[in-house]
Amino acid sequence: MILHDYLPSGNGYKIRLLLSLLGQDYQLKCYDIVQGETHTEAFLKLNANGKIPVLEFDDGRSLTESNAILYYLAQGTPYWPEELWQQSQVLRWMNFEQYSHEPNIATLRFWLGHAGMNQQRQAQWADKKAAGYAALKVMEQHLSEHPYFVGEQFSIADIALYAYTHVAEEAEFDLSTFPAIQAWCYAITQTTNYVDITDDSARLKP
Amino acid sequence: MILHDYLPSGNGYKIRLLLSLLGQDYQLKCYDIVQGETHTEAFLKLNANGKIPVLEFDDGRSLTESNAILYYLAQGTPYWPEELWQQSQVLRWMNFEQYSHEPNIATLRFWLGHAGMNQQRQAQWADKKAAGYAALKVMEQHLSEHPYFVGEQFSIADIALYAYTHVAEEAEFDLSTFPAIQAWCYAITQTTNYVDITDDSARLKP
Repeated sequence: MILHDYLPSGNGYKIRLLLSLLGQDYQLKCYDIVQGETHTEAFLKLNANGKIPVLEFDDGRSLTESNAILYYLAQGTPYWPEELWQQSQVLRWMNFEQYSHEPNIATLRFWLGHAGMNQQRQAQWADKKAAGYAALKVMEQHLSEHPYFVGEQFSIADIALYAYTHVAEEAEFDLSTFPAIQAWCYAITQTTNYVDITDDSARLKP
Repeated sequence: MILHDYLPSGNGYKIRLLLSLLGQDYQLKCYDIVQGETHTEAFLKLNANGKIPVLEFDDGRSLTESNAILYYLAQGTPYWPEELWQQSQVLRWMNFEQYSHEPNIATLRFWLGHAGMNQQRQAQWADKKAAGYAALKVMEQHLSEHPYFVGEQFSIADIALYAYTHVAEEAEFDLSTFPAIQAWCYAITQTTNYVDITDDSARLKP
C-alpha cells in the first residue's frame, strides 16, 4: 500500500497511526500541499477532490477521506466495534471531528504553522478559536465520564479525534484546563506501536 | 422515534427523506436554530454539541450527526451496501459531503436565506462560493459516468449529497452547467415515497 500524504497533516496521521497500531506495512509518499502538489493532473486522478490522504492499494484501487480509510482498515480489528449502536457512535464522533473540530482546530494550526496568515484568515480567527474551544468542551465533558469515546474501548473514533487534539497547542489552544483530554491523550501515547505525527520511517526513498 | 430538527436544514432532511423512503413512522419536533433553541439546557442533554438533527428512540437513547443516523437507519436495507469496498466508498462520499460540500453550499444558503449576512460573512462569500463549485465539479465528474455515487445503486451517500445540492440555487449556485447533477436530482425525486424538504407532515401537534 502507498499512503499519499503530507507529513504535518493530522488527517494523514490518523492513517499512519492506525497502520502502525495494526502492524501493517506501507510506503509513505509525501506531497507539499502548500505548493499545490495535490492539484497536479496525476494527483487528481488519485483524488478528484485534490486532497490527501489517499490510500492506494497494490491492485491499483485507491480510497480517499481519512475517516473512510479508518473504517476500511479497522474492519475485523478491535478498533471497530461489533455492535451497531456502538458503530453508529463511532461514526457520530468521526463526523463531529470532521465538522465541528477539524475545520476549527486543524485549520488554525494549518494557517499559523504552515500556510501563513492573511487579513481574511485573521478576520475568522476569533470565531474559529471559539468554535474549537466549544468542540474541546464537548470532548472534555465526555472524557470526564468515559476513558474513550465509544464503549469504554479505544476505537477509530479516538484516533480521528486524537490527530488534531494532541497538537491543538500548535494552534494556540490551551489544553491546561482540559484534564480529561490530557489523560486520554497520554493513554493513547502509551499504546503498543504508537507513532508520533512526525514519524516518517515509512517514507519512500527517492 | 422523535426527530429533533429544523425544517429548512438539509442535514435534518437527510433523515426525513430516508425515513420516508423506508416507510418508517416518526414524529418531527422543530426548533428555531437561529433563535438559539438548540442551546437550551434541555436540548444540550440530547446533544452536548447543540446541533440538530437528533434522533431520539423510544427507549430514551438518542443519536446525533446526520450521517451517523443515516448509517444506523440504513443497516439491512438497500441503502447500505453489503460489500466492504462499497461501504467505504459510501463513507468516503459522506465525509466529502460534510467537509467539502456542506460548509460551503449549506452555509451560504443558511446565511443568505435564514441567519442573515454581515461583513464577516460577506468576506468569506467568494472563497466559499469557489469551494462549493469545486465540490459540484467533483460530483458532476462522477455522475457523468455513474448513475449514483456508489455501486450503481441509490445509497445513503446519494441522500447525504442530495440534501443540500438540490437546494444549492438558494445559495445562488447555478446548476445549469451541471447536467449530470440535474439528472441525478431528478431521478431521486422519482423514487417511491420521496418527500420534499418542506414536508412537515410528521410534525408533532402542539
